[in-house]
Amino acid sequence: MNIPETILAGMRKTNDLFCTTVVGHRDVDALDHVYTKDARILPPGAEMIDNLAAIKQFWLQAITGLNVTGASLTTVSAEQAGDTVVEIGQAELTLAGGQLVPIKYVVHWKVEDSAWKWHIDIWNMNQ
Amino acid sequence: MNIPETILAGMRKTNDLFCTTVVGHRDVDALDHVYTKDARILPPGAEMIDNLAAIKQFWLQAITGLNVTGASLTTVSAEQAGDTVVEIGQAELTLAGGQLVPIKYVVHWKVEDSAWKWHIDIWNMNQ
Repeated sequence: MNIPETILAGMRKTNDLFCTTVVGHRDVDALDHVYTKDARILPPGAEMIDNLAAIKQFWLQAITGLNVTGASLTTVSAEQAGDTVVEIGQAELTLAGGQLVPIKYVVHWKVEDSAWKWHIDIWNMNQ
Repeated sequence: MNIPETILAGMRKTNDLFCTTVVGHRDVDALDHVYTKDARILPPGAEMIDNLAAIKQFWLQAITGLNVTGASLTTVSAEQAGDTVVEIGQAELTLAGGQLVPIKYVVHWKVEDSAWKWHIDIWNMNQ
């Protein structure tokens, strides 16, 4: 990936927070540090969500509703675009029964408050 | 949208080509003028596709398989990112029976051969 390691490290830090704290501890208030203040998410099977309170509510319902116990995020490619980054990635959710759900995504990353954050987040299922 | 009208016009030209020629006339070779040479698409229910020949095959099968007779694309937001653009949009496919299929998408746009083209294209269904 033709992108500075410092940026990739910043992205990993945010992704780790999502996996460990938001999904692992079901602490959706930590999404303040994952998404920009004016972030938008485009979940499959729903309309776009364009405010952070509703994004928190979405993730709380998704994580508890599906009984998600773990998540991993892997960057497939990341391209710098001005002072932002466009990333293609693969996610894998682990459900309580041990089932793995493969997901692919595109995230438009921006720096906010000195941290790399998800500004636009869209995903879909592989199957 | 805080983006020059000349860029939006270039994006509309490409979107019109997709709707009129690719979908309307089922001419998937016109996708040479829609996607960059190293474009990637992330369709729901499938793995990522990372070469243009396979992207053409995907659209041929999708358009004929679902019997898509029309498409419209509407930009919801577009942000300049360096010399690229990140767009959120809404698509509506018309099927032969008249059924409308609402879709939302994110496209990362780049200029190639003096034309605005889809470089990364991911979408999912609203319902």
